[in-house]
Amino acid sequence: MEHQPRHDRQSVRLAMLQARAEPLAIAANLALVDAAALEASEAGADLLLTPELFATGYAPGRIAASVSEAGVAEAHEALRAIAANRGIALAFSLPGPGPAAERQITATLVDKAGTVILGYAKSHLFGPEEASSFRAGTEAPQVAELLGLRMALLVCYDVEFPETVRAAAVRGAQVVLVPTALTAGYENVARVLVPARALENSLTVAYSNHVGVEDGLDLAGASVVAGPDGNLLVDAGTTTGLVYADLSIPDVDVDYLADRRPGLYRAWEQTRTNQET
Amino acid sequence: MEHQPRHDRQSVRLAMLQARAEPLAIAANLALVDAAALEASEAGADLLLTPELFATGYAPGRIAASVSEAGVAEAHEALRAIAANRGIALAFSLPGPGPAAERQITATLVDKAGTVILGYAKSHLFGPEEASSFRAGTEAPQVAELLGLRMALLVCYDVEFPETVRAAAVRGAQVVLVPTALTAGYENVARVLVPARALENSLTVAYSNHVGVEDGLDLAGASVVAGPDGNLLVDAGTTTGLVYADLSIPDVDVDYLADRRPGLYRAWEQTRTNQET
Repeated sequence: MEHQPRHDRQSVRLAMLQARAEPLAIAANLALVDAAALEASEAGADLLLTPELFATGYAPGRIAASVSEAGVAEAHEALRAIAANRGIALAFSLPGPGPAAERQITATLVDKAGTVILGYAKSHLFGPEEASSFRAGTEAPQVAELLGLRMALLVCYDVEFPETVRAAAVRGAQVVLVPTALTAGYENVARVLVPARALENSLTVAYSNHVGVEDGLDLAGASVVAGPDGNLLVDAGTTTGLVYADLSIPDVDVDYLADRRPGLYRAWEQTRTNQET
Repeated sequence: MEHQPRHDRQSVRLAMLQARAEPLAIAANLALVDAAALEASEAGADLLLTPELFATGYAPGRIAASVSEAGVAEAHEALRAIAANRGIALAFSLPGPGPAAERQITATLVDKAGTVILGYAKSHLFGPEEASSFRAGTEAPQVAELLGLRMALLVCYDVEFPETVRAAAVRGAQVVLVPTALTAGYENVARVLVPARALENSLTVAYSNHVGVEDGLDLAGASVVAGPDGNLLVDAGTTTGLVYADLSIPDVDVDYLADRRPGLYRAWEQTRTNQET
């Protein structure tokens, strides 16, 4: 079974964790991920997506001050081991490697053997606390194939910018996995922007959030999966636990990627720059 | 009253026409616009937005074959006169000027004196019939001030591409007026993409559609106005007639325009081009 090609599968079953993480309680948070991976695997899921900075809790300033380079590396290894032990692919978000002053907010996709197949660093940091605690990424989202679907990673605020998902789509992404930390009051990000990203790029977007108060922030839940028709496959509301969606190769109806006019957009940007300077 | 500055107004009252046009029955369609302008003006509206190619009906091939350059010019003058006679600003869409083989699908904004203050040519034609009947525009959407609000025009399929509304937003648009001809089954354009365009650019988008069958096409209604918070101010459903919304200078909450990274997007586009060639 392990080595059987799975590229002909009709769909990939995604599990998405929506839960509260305890800031800086890495062992406890990893235990939550492990329990979720076991439950998801037993439910037949192929892939588990988890929220932004879940292992550390969403507390940028406290992470920068208190989570060491070694602590990050240990958490990274532990998450790879969870995937391998539970036999499920896993997408997770952590501080990046290196000294705290140089770290990015990263996302990583590992297959069910625990092998890293894709990485990404958040290119749009949100607000002054993130900006003073992390460095912004600069690399475009890349694409890797998992179980016959081409996947890309973004993190949280990135997905609110159409330019980021477009960059993934033109590189061939069929599914964009987005660990996030969205606060209450901004649910339209999940319920308006995420479905639009899916529809305007003919792909699926999965958006996995915390729910509950962490470090004084009221995190909204509203984890969603939006399909290429712009409809929600699932909306976790404010529940705690796993939700599921079946991902498949998108049917392209209106071919936005073929009909877009990148040369025009470049010229428009140039015109505007000339006008403003 | 006529010459009193109105820049300090709290809001601009928009009326939006959703109706069926009769293909090629220009006089009858203009009479509908005139009646709508009168009704809207009497209801206190400052601006009337009408659907794509409403004066001619949405029938690209038949327009190309049957509507002359002189017929277009007459319709353009008639629409300016309606604005002036009814004392209401008017946004309308027509074939562009010139010989039929060279025409674009245009949108025009005139003030309540009937003076043209803004024009635009559709840059994303939809489907083979439009492409064989019209030429695509190439100019970025520009911005003009009307009653204290900075307005831009797009046409129909354009608004489905985030790049177009972004181009208007970075030029200062606070309101984007979109005459459209959306067919049934694609209501997520109105209810998912249009609200996303508004939210991701901190502006208001007004999207005015036909409703009913024209030239064999079942046009969807679902004219909407979406505000900068991503919520719909109005959704016309499948009704025929006028709907209203009050437009005002947007409150910017999350400042997407400040937080976007255009240099990065250019580099990502370049990287991708290098990879693919």
